[in-house]
Amino acid sequence: MAVIALTTDFGYADWFAGTLRGVILALAPRATVVDLTHGLRAGDIRAGAFALAASCRFYPRGTIHVVVVDPGVGSQRRPIAVQTDDYFFLGPDNGVLSWALRQQTVKAMQALENQDYFLRPISRTFHGRDIFASAAAHLARGVPIKEMGPRLKQIVHLSWPEPTQTAGSIRGQVVYIDQFGNAITNIEAALLRSLGARRLQFCWRRNQCCRVADFYQAVPAGTPVAVCGSSGFLELAINAGNAAAELRLKVGSPVIVSRRAER
Amino acid sequence: MAVIALTTDFGYADWFAGTLRGVILALAPRATVVDLTHGLRAGDIRAGAFALAASCRFYPRGTIHVVVVDPGVGSQRRPIAVQTDDYFFLGPDNGVLSWALRQQTVKAMQALENQDYFLRPISRTFHGRDIFASAAAHLARGVPIKEMGPRLKQIVHLSWPEPTQTAGSIRGQVVYIDQFGNAITNIEAALLRSLGARRLQFCWRRNQCCRVADFYQAVPAGTPVAVCGSSGFLELAINAGNAAAELRLKVGSPVIVSRRAER
Amino acid sequence: MAVIALTTDFGYADWFAGTLRGVILALAPRATVVDLTHGLRAGDIRAGAFALAASCRFYPRGTIHVVVVDPGVGSQRRPIAVQTDDYFFLGPDNGVLSWALRQQTVKAMQALENQDYFLRPISRTFHGRDIFASAAAHLARGVPIKEMGPRLKQIVHLSWPEPTQTAGSIRGQVVYIDQFGNAITNIEAALLRSLGARRLQFCWRRNQCCRVADFYQAVPAGTPVAVCGSSGFLELAINAGNAAAELRLKVGSPVIVSRRAER
Repeated sequence: MAVIALTTDFGYADWFAGTLRGVILALAPRATVVDLTHGLRAGDIRAGAFALAASCRFYPRGTIHVVVVDPGVGSQRRPIAVQTDDYFFLGPDNGVLSWALRQQTVKAMQALENQDYFLRPISRTFHGRDIFASAAAHLARGVPIKEMGPRLKQIVHLSWPEPTQTAGSIRGQVVYIDQFGNAITNIEAALLRSLGARRLQFCWRRNQCCRVADFYQAVPAGTPVAVCGSSGFLELAINAGNAAAELRLKVGSPVIVSRRAER
Repeated sequence: MAVIALTTDFGYADWFAGTLRGVILALAPRATVVDLTHGLRAGDIRAGAFALAASCRFYPRGTIHVVVVDPGVGSQRRPIAVQTDDYFFLGPDNGVLSWALRQQTVKAMQALENQDYFLRPISRTFHGRDIFASAAAHLARGVPIKEMGPRLKQIVHLSWPEPTQTAGSIRGQVVYIDQFGNAITNIEAALLRSLGARRLQFCWRRNQCCRVADFYQAVPAGTPVAVCGSSGFLELAINAGNAAAELRLKVGSPVIVSRRAER
Repeated sequence: MAVIALTTDFGYADWFAGTLRGVILALAPRATVVDLTHGLRAGDIRAGAFALAASCRFYPRGTIHVVVVDPGVGSQRRPIAVQTDDYFFLGPDNGVLSWALRQQTVKAMQALENQDYFLRPISRTFHGRDIFASAAAHLARGVPIKEMGPRLKQIVHLSWPEPTQTAGSIRGQVVYIDQFGNAITNIEAALLRSLGARRLQFCWRRNQCCRVADFYQAVPAGTPVAVCGSSGFLELAINAGNAAAELRLKVGSPVIVSRRAER
């Protein structure tokens, strides 16, 4: 039976993530329930969108991704379900699914409205439990997505900050900071080839630059280094350190990568 | 085979929770082991009791709930197992099970004493591993609860602070603070109807009051709001903020909900 | 099918641990994937080695232990797989497996080099995903370990600090601090018998001593106490407190246990 993967900002201190697991196992006892993460920063929709896009494709085909970063829970935002060639995605229609969907071919988008597939009574503050986990379990049992609610033509998309290229340089920005303090940018590793140089430098402030290398320990401990990270984007790290904290970077901080003078 | 749900204060930094999973899979390979949470505040029996009561009923019938918040491990407190119409509960007899049991019909209460169902040697500091996880796995394999030890007539119950009602107001207190800083009270949502008013106010200090609304974003970001939370109790939140920290609330802080003057 | 147990320093905030689960379920859908822990201190190889040695033996025979504490990811250090009488262990060859292997009879040690069992392209920064999780899933499906790469004669071993015994005392040191602040030493409980006394004292600084007791609550709250911990070693705790923080202990701090004067 299907894998149901949970991605939320519920954290690990309370019973919220554990309740999703219970709801799913009660309705779909043979589903495999697995945590993608519950540690996203509370209410940070863009962080959720990036985390999902960076990892969802490593799951088996047919996985049902339940994604709950939902600061507007209980308000007018709609709960939705999206089917792609490979996966199902359930979550609030606030953009949190949108960067993952850029990698997928969408086959169906439905509003989650059919209360037959919800827990009742439906709380106004915990749709993860009462709507998303419950609907996911019904999908896992074989309920067609079209039963879940009316078809949608539009869902909310977060803008993706495209990097800008000039002769010899690429300007981008930090889009995610991981718990090691690595600052992941919007500059895809594949783009670097366009610079036509083997030696590149990466700058996060005027006169604050480092080299682009292959892995963290390519530089001494405590030294900044830019590497092509595992999600396919250039990231700034400090070997054995915390780049974001030590270099005062945050989501949105501008960066430039350019050719390094050959000597 | 049975679901075994783990609720502990072992945290996520060390190998303690992971060891429970190993013990259970070694004894009952076909059990489904799932975390309710391991993030409870260390040694906080009342927090454990509240978390369990707020979530255990979302698990499938027959689930074996292993609940280890056990500051007295190794001392005279008894390990116990309780069977209700729906579940099994295993834990120390310190009250941590008692608020969940208020919702259930108890069918059997036994001391966990039969060492045939323990790991040996039994440590004095990790009964979660040596007694509770081991006994749970044996229950999952079909060992009758009566085999686990002698029948008990009494177990420890934590007092539940009942709210007090006067004409037009209900006085209660904070009973749990979740990791978002929401301060959950002992005032059940159903009680509010007795106030006979559509507009209510919630006060946590003299002259520090807010409205009761349906969901967090019913008020602007940074504003306090009381909502009927997902566990069925009134809770004080700050939309996009941390109510407990910003309003200096803790478990035991008194609150009052009352009619709001219509204007 | 096999249990695959994950032990890493990836933490819980991002998608890293969740990606391992996806990779494994995609390749070995019937494997049971379970977290030993993802909360090890980032890059702390000795902490990882201790955690694994303290817990791996509670897992069922045949478990595949994937252990990724890998500050040198992408550098020259080798990925390896070790088969013992009871388990498989996969991880970087930096010593993180070595204390667990002291308890086991090794049957095979191979370099992980056969790219047929890797995800491709192989990143330089996330071998947990691209090498270790992938190879573990192939092992779970029945690929022989000898297929994974050439046989190794030597792997890296961390030195284990042996305690030193004199007449009437044993000198050791702190080797791990858990999240409760308990300071676990290298002094095995079994060694204490050699002191030939029922009453023992434990000192962590000149004139800073406490008694050795059976469990935490054998002393009043706030009081230091040394107990024989669940991993088989003497540990210093404060009942209802944090010994490492309050007594300023860290990994490497010297300790002495000796006979206590009978009065």
